[in-house]
Amino acid sequence: MKLATYQDGSRDGQLVVVSRDLSQAHYATHIANRLQQVLDDWNYLSPALQDIYHQLNQGRARHAFPFDPAQCMAPLPRAYQWLDGSAYLNHVELVRQARGADMPESAQTDPLMYQGGSDDLAGPHAEIVCASESWGVDFEAELAVITGDVPMGCASDRALDAVRLLALVNDVTLRNLVPDELAKGFGFVKSKPATAFAPVVVTPDELGEAWARGRVHLPVQCVWNGRKVGMCEAGSDMHFHFGQLIAHAAKTRRLRAGTIVGSGTVSNKGVARKNRTEWPHGYSCIAEKRAMETLQDGQPSTEYMKFGDTIRIEVKGRDGGSVFGAIHQEVVPLDVRSRGTAAPSVPEAGPAQDVTP
Amino acid sequence: MKLATYQDGSRDGQLVVVSRDLSQAHYATHIANRLQQVLDDWNYLSPALQDIYHQLNQGRARHAFPFDPAQCMAPLPRAYQWLDGSAYLNHVELVRQARGADMPESAQTDPLMYQGGSDDLAGPHAEIVCASESWGVDFEAELAVITGDVPMGCASDRALDAVRLLALVNDVTLRNLVPDELAKGFGFVKSKPATAFAPVVVTPDELGEAWARGRVHLPVQCVWNGRKVGMCEAGSDMHFHFGQLIAHAAKTRRLRAGTIVGSGTVSNKGVARKNRTEWPHGYSCIAEKRAMETLQDGQPSTEYMKFGDTIRIEVKGRDGGSVFGAIHQEVVPLDVRSRGTAAPSVPEAGPAQDVTP
Repeated sequence: MKLATYQDGSRDGQLVVVSRDLSQAHYATHIANRLQQVLDDWNYLSPALQDIYHQLNQGRARHAFPFDPAQCMAPLPRAYQWLDGSAYLNHVELVRQARGADMPESAQTDPLMYQGGSDDLAGPHAEIVCASESWGVDFEAELAVITGDVPMGCASDRALDAVRLLALVNDVTLRNLVPDELAKGFGFVKSKPATAFAPVVVTPDELGEAWARGRVHLPVQCVWNGRKVGMCEAGSDMHFHFGQLIAHAAKTRRLRAGTIVGSGTVSNKGVARKNRTEWPHGYSCIAEKRAMETLQDGQPSTEYMKFGDTIRIEVKGRDGGSVFGAIHQEVVPLDVRSRGTAAPSVPEAGPAQDVTP
Repeated sequence: MKLATYQDGSRDGQLVVVSRDLSQAHYATHIANRLQQVLDDWNYLSPALQDIYHQLNQGRARHAFPFDPAQCMAPLPRAYQWLDGSAYLNHVELVRQARGADMPESAQTDPLMYQGGSDDLAGPHAEIVCASESWGVDFEAELAVITGDVPMGCASDRALDAVRLLALVNDVTLRNLVPDELAKGFGFVKSKPATAFAPVVVTPDELGEAWARGRVHLPVQCVWNGRKVGMCEAGSDMHFHFGQLIAHAAKTRRLRAGTIVGSGTVSNKGVARKNRTEWPHGYSCIAEKRAMETLQDGQPSTEYMKFGDTIRIEVKGRDGGSVFGAIHQEVVPLDVRSRGTAAPSVPEAGPAQDVTP
């Protein structure tokens, strides 16, 4: 089953069921208006949505209409929890090398995970609004799961049973703000603005055998300014599977339905070729590309995103069809969007001057 | 105006208006069922709630009933965002000294703030459920604000205008899990279980002149196992005011209505007396007490909370009345509550064994 949330002027939008090929949609109004309602009461509400889904796929849904991804908000436009892991250790290793930091000792057994902002999750075509290019705007292509209720202390195999939906995510990162926040140790408040979501979320059965052992065994395509830069395999190098990430998050507290747990940037290990390491699958974030350049050539040559840059992220299934639809975002300056003037009116990166008492 | 959320078996409960003296309540059903709805549409909905509030205080509300704090969930049982600052630098300094860590250089100008879990906020009498006393259960008495929408890049004085409600919070901390998470730099996922809230939230005007310059100028009373251990002044040593904390959070992203921003543990500076420093107002968390003992006597002698321990947190107004009602929680083992057996069935603190792939 595939689900999306259509804009309707409200903060939470309207739940729609979307056909497998993403061509048709159907309002779920008589079952639930919002995806969170379905997650709150999954066993009771999801069968009725599944019925609509079957009718849509068979061309028998009576009030179907053409699906338009441009009308989509994030499937959960605001969520009660967004926890993002770093399950691809290769990503962690590359990015740490790039900033001269060591790999944490516990990395093999204890997942890195941060609590992200979930009050403002962005739709697939939302602009990446940013006050300054100097913040180092980067994309991060990730997969995520949305869970049901998870009890405290849940084991990782049982945690997998709590997976209700899969999602494709752009965990936008302001790379140049990361080092200061890492040094503070309190996680990312400034360096992780609104995370964006592909138009539809899907139940795991939609992936067939590509959903196995808690991982999505499909490549994630990243196209930056029209150029394909990444085609990383999401399954092979995912060190912690989603059940392990959920169990980690639930170690000291229960998780409530609608919790989103991310995989971290999808990343594949390098391959040794002619005395140097290469990454034939490319990259799912610019920080990795810069790390690769540093390792290969001694310094990075690729710059982070500029105003006007676009990023497109998509996952194709084994049948060639788009699983989640595509994320397609453009970086825009804050002033153009919200103020209609080019005059800078928010502080630049650096010491937070306006919070000095 | 004072508002609370009554249990009704649902995840979000029922919004009630509570009289100033906390003696009477009135369902807000015909205006809004849930507090989040009011925050989403504050200017439209809050005047009608204010009307009920006036009627309650004058004894003229037609369907009033005695207010019972034991029926309360957290005012927002689940929220879209919970950001907790560390505005009392004395707390940061004391706790860091206790674990031998330095004060970050930027502490005076750049607030420490972490993104907390908001999917499961606890009511005022909720048990603090914990799998092991060895995790080092601690209370942290704090004040918090709940905001309306805040634009990205908002200045701190304008950010103050976004404050809709004030709250009293117990930011429960598993103290012995903190150092490992701090070292990872990704913030607190395991060491901060469900945060608890006093029964009612109040509009700032309820505090009269005690709400000034973005701070609550009242003492916060902490009673641990029936013994008063803290009476710290919340106003005097709050280095960053709430407007500054909100502006910090909104530096690179907008904040949506219902965002909760915490002050961090309320703490007062020490006073030099007879060649040693003393803290006459006591403490709002055990970590501070242990830090004080370390500074005074070379080592801590007070242990963290044990199963069966209770903590009571309350703020009295200048008229002597309880502003928010009291938080009153007991620490209980996970097994007793959820499994009815004493057999340990969740992993102890330490390396996360069950997440090894």
